[in-house]
Amino acid sequence: MTHFELAVIGAGSGNTVPGQRWKGRDVVLFDDGEWFGGTCLNHGCIPTKMFVRVADIVHEAQQHGLGLLGSAPKADWGAVQSRVFDRTNAISLSGEAWRDRTTRLVRETSALVDDHTIVTASGETFTADKVVIAAGSRTRSLDCEHDPRDVLTSDSVMRVDQLPSSLVIIGSGAVAAEFAHIFDGFGTQVTVAARRGRMLRREDELVSQRFTELAEQRYRLLKDVSPVSIERADGGLRTTFDDGTVVESDAVLNATGRIPNTDRVGAGIFDTHDDGRLVTDDALRVQRDGKPVEHVYALGDVTSGFGLKHVANHQARVIEARLAGEDARDTLSPVPAATFAGPEVASFGMRSQDAPDDAVVVTRDYGSTAYGWALEDSSSFLRLVVSSAGELLGAHIIGPHASMLLQPLVQAASVGARIQGLARGQYWPHPALTEVIENALLEAEDLLQGEG
Amino acid sequence: MTHFELAVIGAGSGNTVPGQRWKGRDVVLFDDGEWFGGTCLNHGCIPTKMFVRVADIVHEAQQHGLGLLGSAPKADWGAVQSRVFDRTNAISLSGEAWRDRTTRLVRETSALVDDHTIVTASGETFTADKVVIAAGSRTRSLDCEHDPRDVLTSDSVMRVDQLPSSLVIIGSGAVAAEFAHIFDGFGTQVTVAARRGRMLRREDELVSQRFTELAEQRYRLLKDVSPVSIERADGGLRTTFDDGTVVESDAVLNATGRIPNTDRVGAGIFDTHDDGRLVTDDALRVQRDGKPVEHVYALGDVTSGFGLKHVANHQARVIEARLAGEDARDTLSPVPAATFAGPEVASFGMRSQDAPDDAVVVTRDYGSTAYGWALEDSSSFLRLVVSSAGELLGAHIIGPHASMLLQPLVQAASVGARIQGLARGQYWPHPALTEVIENALLEAEDLLQGEG
Repeated sequence: MTHFELAVIGAGSGNTVPGQRWKGRDVVLFDDGEWFGGTCLNHGCIPTKMFVRVADIVHEAQQHGLGLLGSAPKADWGAVQSRVFDRTNAISLSGEAWRDRTTRLVRETSALVDDHTIVTASGETFTADKVVIAAGSRTRSLDCEHDPRDVLTSDSVMRVDQLPSSLVIIGSGAVAAEFAHIFDGFGTQVTVAARRGRMLRREDELVSQRFTELAEQRYRLLKDVSPVSIERADGGLRTTFDDGTVVESDAVLNATGRIPNTDRVGAGIFDTHDDGRLVTDDALRVQRDGKPVEHVYALGDVTSGFGLKHVANHQARVIEARLAGEDARDTLSPVPAATFAGPEVASFGMRSQDAPDDAVVVTRDYGSTAYGWALEDSSSFLRLVVSSAGELLGAHIIGPHASMLLQPLVQAASVGARIQGLARGQYWPHPALTEVIENALLEAEDLLQGEG
Repeated sequence: MTHFELAVIGAGSGNTVPGQRWKGRDVVLFDDGEWFGGTCLNHGCIPTKMFVRVADIVHEAQQHGLGLLGSAPKADWGAVQSRVFDRTNAISLSGEAWRDRTTRLVRETSALVDDHTIVTASGETFTADKVVIAAGSRTRSLDCEHDPRDVLTSDSVMRVDQLPSSLVIIGSGAVAAEFAHIFDGFGTQVTVAARRGRMLRREDELVSQRFTELAEQRYRLLKDVSPVSIERADGGLRTTFDDGTVVESDAVLNATGRIPNTDRVGAGIFDTHDDGRLVTDDALRVQRDGKPVEHVYALGDVTSGFGLKHVANHQARVIEARLAGEDARDTLSPVPAATFAGPEVASFGMRSQDAPDDAVVVTRDYGSTAYGWALEDSSSFLRLVVSSAGELLGAHIIGPHASMLLQPLVQAASVGARIQGLARGQYWPHPALTEVIENALLEAEDLLQGEG
């Protein structure tokens, strides 16, 4: 048995907790991933965006009505794969080597047996004064007849040797939407199977509806279906859905959602939500019988319902500060999220369908701005939800560059600025796409004045 | 002679001054442009961006190293032209028709003869209680031997029937940079002739230097040259420069800069700067012998040194408010500017070469962020100039989406926010390109702390 000052379970955002202030101190770090460094770097945000950008270019070059002649370029699966994983694998390997030199690094699946003790699969026991649970999440299993080895997940789908000529994607959230965009861009015949009638159902209803319409123009979208079975057939896979639809494809991707990795590292010892996430307070301490456990923290997908890397990173900073004796809290808001699909979607806060009666909801099309004309855009928009007092309760964007366009609104909402005067209190360079924000803010302000 | 309550000379931003509050009142509006509505709509910001976006797509599809196969699409000059001018001409015509119905509209060149009296070229005389001079600017004449009919300007170059197979662009500022990007993207053989050794010399020196390097990779760039003569030769044009270089081309574009249209509408009556711009105070009143003329206002390129549409629009709002008796002032800052070239450049405020010794200058590459990896970017960056107290004195971006990325920084600087806490006071959705801002702000904050 070896004793440490700090144990960190999971080397995604958890890897950033033992930073400069822990140099030379006794730290043990657990990571059982095939590639060191967690989901974001190896299987999530970062590699997906590198594939997405290539799909974007192909898709944009195919855009009708802009005045382009000739064919679009084609995306080269192998070349993009090499480009992506040469970069991320190198980062993973150098991070692992560095941790191996400076920290006790344990590269096997490990279980928390009490709030100070971790036992590895091979039977080694570690104890620690303080424990940080940052074990992340994994793809939820499919609830249908299938051999799991036949079904790809976001962990495996970007690393398959051959681009599938056809792909069934089960799911309709952000992961499904991004992979549908990627594979469609790379030339795969894509079928998305949505459990309900719309994709991105967590988004504002008009965003979700618009996204769904655009998806249907690009690939086959099955609505209100769940898979019943996935079988091998004719060298590929045959997916049967509960409405009787049968789709044959080269490959199937399970993108139905993620569950927290708390089974071995917290559930049964600490309080959990119904979905398995660890309950934490705003100091990110886990709870037992409703009371905080002073020396055990949790961050990221094991506790946060957002499933977002920037939230996990923020929580890692809060924990790092608390471990150093500072009174940091996990209270930063609003929390923006971006889906890098075709098109991008980005949003934070209250959706229009949840807005109180006295709130103002404003929807401005990209096409109402000069840059929208440059994009020849007829589908993208920004929607704001503003309280009767002028607080920015929510912002929802569907369209090119949504992830960037959202930031001035995140910034305003984060400092609690009212929207009154926000548009006219700064210049918006003409004719940048940010004019859609300016115009939406002005319209909201007019409506508030009209009501006042 | 006809008397009016308000005379507005120039129907670009000037057209927005007589808004709702002037409905039914006696207004006369002068515009002598071939197309009604000023430079931005007809020959400037708006049509250029519509051409630029097409060039962007062609350029992006040609990008090496991303993992694309096959050729890029080609831009169709005639199709894009129709798309652009069908839209802008329709707006121009409907704006003109509306003004013609609701306002006295005079469509000929007119001169201000005293501070209440305007005389048209055909000899008609108008008087007004209040006058707004918004006559804009025009391309400066070339100071070399040539027939002006042989040389295109930004007014004419987008409307030529045939795409020139080769084009010499004289100038190296924003207009030259945008048209070089456009015509290179459309497949024209482009030569840019810069009077000095760099393009975009008004920008931060590293931005200007980087832009120049990238330009040289895309088209021929002649440095430190001025044209001596432009002659017709072999069905095209032959431009001879002062270093002896001779370039033959289909067409020549004069993009050497713009001069204010004050010769007939203000100069000689009111005080002017050395470059011909009207002197105005922060109420935008013109001056005579250093004293404001209470009833004559000026806006846009006839008075502003920025040459920016968003500045002219802001000034129009200030004047509209003042005419209604409000105490509005033209003091909004900072003033951002964007050049939509290949790549985009956007900036405001102090450049690094002008920074005081105790300022902090931070430069962050797009390539230091995950989205920069998605772009496979190795040339783009954001540079911040921050005072020792933490004020954001300047921000300079070269790279894709610069015009959008700048906005959170404009917003922070406009409310006078210090940079301390700005990055950590809001979420930056991972892995959006806005992370380059977050990282630059954090680095600047670290440097300020180190100094403190």
